[in-house]
Amino acid sequence: MSGRGMLVVVSGFSGAGKGTLMKALLDRYDNYALSISATTRAPREGEIDGREYFFVSRDRFEEMIVQDALIEYAQYVNNYYGTPKDYVFSQMEAGRDVILEIEIQGALKVKERFPQAILIFVMPPSGRELKTRLIGRGTESMEVIDARLKRAAQEAEGIEAYDYILVNDKIDQCVETMHQLIQIQHLRAGENEEFITRIREELKNL
Amino acid sequence: MSGRGMLVVVSGFSGAGKGTLMKALLDRYDNYALSISATTRAPREGEIDGREYFFVSRDRFEEMIVQDALIEYAQYVNNYYGTPKDYVFSQMEAGRDVILEIEIQGALKVKERFPQAILIFVMPPSGRELKTRLIGRGTESMEVIDARLKRAAQEAEGIEAYDYILVNDKIDQCVETMHQLIQIQHLRAGENEEFITRIREELKNL
Repeated sequence: MSGRGMLVVVSGFSGAGKGTLMKALLDRYDNYALSISATTRAPREGEIDGREYFFVSRDRFEEMIVQDALIEYAQYVNNYYGTPKDYVFSQMEAGRDVILEIEIQGALKVKERFPQAILIFVMPPSGRELKTRLIGRGTESMEVIDARLKRAAQEAEGIEAYDYILVNDKIDQCVETMHQLIQIQHLRAGENEEFITRIREELKNL
Repeated sequence: MSGRGMLVVVSGFSGAGKGTLMKALLDRYDNYALSISATTRAPREGEIDGREYFFVSRDRFEEMIVQDALIEYAQYVNNYYGTPKDYVFSQMEAGRDVILEIEIQGALKVKERFPQAILIFVMPPSGRELKTRLIGRGTESMEVIDARLKRAAQEAEGIEAYDYILVNDKIDQCVETMHQLIQIQHLRAGENEEFITRIREELKNL
């Protein structure tokens, strides 16, 4: 009912299929926009400014921090990563549900500043299945896979802070469920204050 | 994912189509149960004990209050009305989502005691449409209809306390939306603590 888009945060273990899920969701429905992060790290081969990331200088990033132009930011390995407000808010104003694919720390910061944001954690059906998928990719050594599983075990400690758990068993069904989950949030009372006020006024004057 | 049923509270203006909506939902899906209220008022022509209401004596009702056997209760026109815990909790244990069709005051009491309950307010698309529907029934005098509209205007003051607003424009679509809305809540993190704990333990031991 409400015309404004929602702020949706998606996190999940490496190997849970987040990337595939996001791609399928954006391919299938045109009411979504994927937030693009800003970073101070150098572009890698094939990465394009404004597609994978907004590549900015350290000075520019720190200016954005000072100007409160970021929804959240963090430092990893001497580089800044953050979510610029401009793009997210303008997309939401245009009625698109904006998806932030970020890690737990960032997700919690977003929830603190924007309690109406929807936090979704994408899970594999089981730990065993996560391992199978990571091995199945065939792109990483067992050492890297073990590190990813250890990391997943750590990240799993923060899951209760999320609003919803989405199990990615069959991708097609998972995309539909995610779409429903987000669209249903448009029915929240807090998203429909104008409608409620309108009906209230109308009822008084009938 | 979770095996336990949800507690769903449905309220809405007289004439918003709650009754039709509930009937269609229960006809179409068998994972729902409708809570049956207990009351001290006398059965009306055609009402059957255990179908419309559990008809009980005033002594019995007050015993239930003392025994904390009611989820919520209230007094209207010298009669008690309340929701017995037994039926609701046993249906939830059996995996059914239990729907309580109650008024705002009762809804707020339920939310206080069971914060995980989902509160849904059913609305007509407009105040004008509500009036049209009430007139269209052809069963009530304009005096009664005006009283219902006044009552709706009063009830409208409490809508923000509900979680979701469901606009009943086309009944078929509204039933589907309500079903999705309730089923999506099974994905809440709080409803999946066992699953989260299981994956967490598994990841630690992979």
